[in-house]
Amino acid sequence: MPATPPSDKALVPFVSVENMMKLVHHIGIEPMLRGLADYIEQDFRRWDLFDKTPRIASHSTEGVIELMPTSDGEVYGFKYVNGHPKNTRNGLQTVTAFGLLADVSNGYPVLLSEMTVLTALRTAATSGMVAKHLAPKGADTMAMIGNGAQSEFQSLAMKAICGLTSVRLWDIDPAATHKTAHNLKGLGLNVHVCDSAESAMEGAQIITTCTADKQYATILTDNMIGSGVHINAIGGDCPGKTELAPGVLHRSDIFVEYPEQTRIEGEIQQLPPDHPVTQIWEVINGTKPGRTSAGQIILFDSVGFAIEDFSALRYVRDHIGGTDLYLPLDLLADPDDPRDLFGMVQRAAPVA
Amino acid sequence: MPATPPSDKALVPFVSVENMMKLVHHIGIEPMLRGLADYIEQDFRRWDLFDKTPRIASHSTEGVIELMPTSDGEVYGFKYVNGHPKNTRNGLQTVTAFGLLADVSNGYPVLLSEMTVLTALRTAATSGMVAKHLAPKGADTMAMIGNGAQSEFQSLAMKAICGLTSVRLWDIDPAATHKTAHNLKGLGLNVHVCDSAESAMEGAQIITTCTADKQYATILTDNMIGSGVHINAIGGDCPGKTELAPGVLHRSDIFVEYPEQTRIEGEIQQLPPDHPVTQIWEVINGTKPGRTSAGQIILFDSVGFAIEDFSALRYVRDHIGGTDLYLPLDLLADPDDPRDLFGMVQRAAPVA
Repeated sequence: MPATPPSDKALVPFVSVENMMKLVHHIGIEPMLRGLADYIEQDFRRWDLFDKTPRIASHSTEGVIELMPTSDGEVYGFKYVNGHPKNTRNGLQTVTAFGLLADVSNGYPVLLSEMTVLTALRTAATSGMVAKHLAPKGADTMAMIGNGAQSEFQSLAMKAICGLTSVRLWDIDPAATHKTAHNLKGLGLNVHVCDSAESAMEGAQIITTCTADKQYATILTDNMIGSGVHINAIGGDCPGKTELAPGVLHRSDIFVEYPEQTRIEGEIQQLPPDHPVTQIWEVINGTKPGRTSAGQIILFDSVGFAIEDFSALRYVRDHIGGTDLYLPLDLLADPDDPRDLFGMVQRAAPVA
Repeated sequence: MPATPPSDKALVPFVSVENMMKLVHHIGIEPMLRGLADYIEQDFRRWDLFDKTPRIASHSTEGVIELMPTSDGEVYGFKYVNGHPKNTRNGLQTVTAFGLLADVSNGYPVLLSEMTVLTALRTAATSGMVAKHLAPKGADTMAMIGNGAQSEFQSLAMKAICGLTSVRLWDIDPAATHKTAHNLKGLGLNVHVCDSAESAMEGAQIITTCTADKQYATILTDNMIGSGVHINAIGGDCPGKTELAPGVLHRSDIFVEYPEQTRIEGEIQQLPPDHPVTQIWEVINGTKPGRTSAGQIILFDSVGFAIEDFSALRYVRDHIGGTDLYLPLDLLADPDDPRDLFGMVQRAAPVA
């Protein structure tokens, strides 16, 4: 008997890097950032529903490989992500990622997707969504400190979601700034190349830090931060890596995604474990105040949480229908009779 | 500038269900079972090297979705597997699985593979490898209690690895036994269809139990078990699911994969947490005795462990080279300049 082709249930839609990039252009990067921010906000609003587990990390001397699972009771998702700081020396990415969604009711995967590009988008969308809630009203200028892979995404997300009109770039490496300025050309933002972190902050109501060194760095010192700003601290995301001077933390009201994780990985690893923080989801659903005065310094100590990946995968799942931007992957065995897996294998034998 | 195709580093070999079945026929099922058993034995021999974590489970009322990661310090692997007992009512598999290997030194995935078929093979190969070490010398007859999806794989693994010549089938559902007997026809085993568990055990030196009900069942009662047998208990693999009467456990010397997991999921969940067990890997590397007398009753309380999946994925990785049985999957973003992810996305824009 010839092998029968797999049924629809056995085929998992796969979004490759190439198709993810096509999806970005199909939707448009700013509408997609806004859409992702909406999905993330929806999921933050129903935070209590989620099964929240700290990421499961496998550490080595060279880096870390992590699995970040979560579930809302109907859909299960996880992201695979690595972090290998020395990879760039060999022409490899520091971080690569992919993710999966599955149906909780039967355990069958429903989406497999690249997540290197998608994580860049969701990180920026999260920053924009949080700034919409916490940045000073009318904020139109951002200092972008650290002009690596995330900098253009951050700039466009703040434009798309918060109405940013100007971005002021600075990086310790002028080539990085040049790259970011070049990439942002013609995309509707006034781009200023600055020669110091201090000058980048002139007139900025939003300050985004996104640097890469794994150390206790001091990108922002206490005297650099004026009243009323929104600090969007993206780059610190593991133990032993921070970007802000403790003085800045003490002058700020601090907002986080998931305190259990942020206290290990975020800027607040520098603070006592009982230092008060507010969870973003409580601001979004109205149970805790966000910004309460114009002079208040607000710090979003962002580390990235599994629910944001879940939201991003949901967004992709909901937007690939009717496109040819996915490949049906024969990932699941699907015998006609579930007890007859062996018979399925036998029937796949080449015809003699 | 047109988008450049992804580099080799960005492409992850993917083995679909169809290609896994072709690989089985390309290698031959018995040589493949022996090869898998060798890989598993190699990895059990270096057990101490492995990063061992209990599986990470997401439970729901309908079932469970689990991630099973491990690493030997050079290669990282994980398996995604679900367990949804009611799935068969809807024509779906109770268990589906896929797995991944990655390079610990840079975090890049090196293999993505279906694991529904592969798990069936590795489970049988593990049983065969363990029976080779612990079954009575010259064992040639197996009682196969429970004739579901695993039964043919178990029978052939015992033939390929331990020299089994006869299998005695019994299942509460005669249709299941008929299916297994039909599938095993012409594969070199004497197949006996039996009308009770007791009659299946006549003359059998190896007794394999592999039943599916999630309950404290008693497939084997104390009076059914004569001296000297090797009991290969496969089917109990979660809390609340066992197959053997406590009396059988008390008369047996018990061997397990990973006690921390087996005490939760295996037959020994019925015993006090300090009941003595021997780890298989200690028998294989010679630090603990295996079978010490012909009359000894040995129980392999098998639950399946992440290292077996790791071994199976290594085997597949090492055997797809030079074949066309995999698809290079564009899973990882690979910009020319790792800091220029945005530029890579921009260059993928459709030409106007």
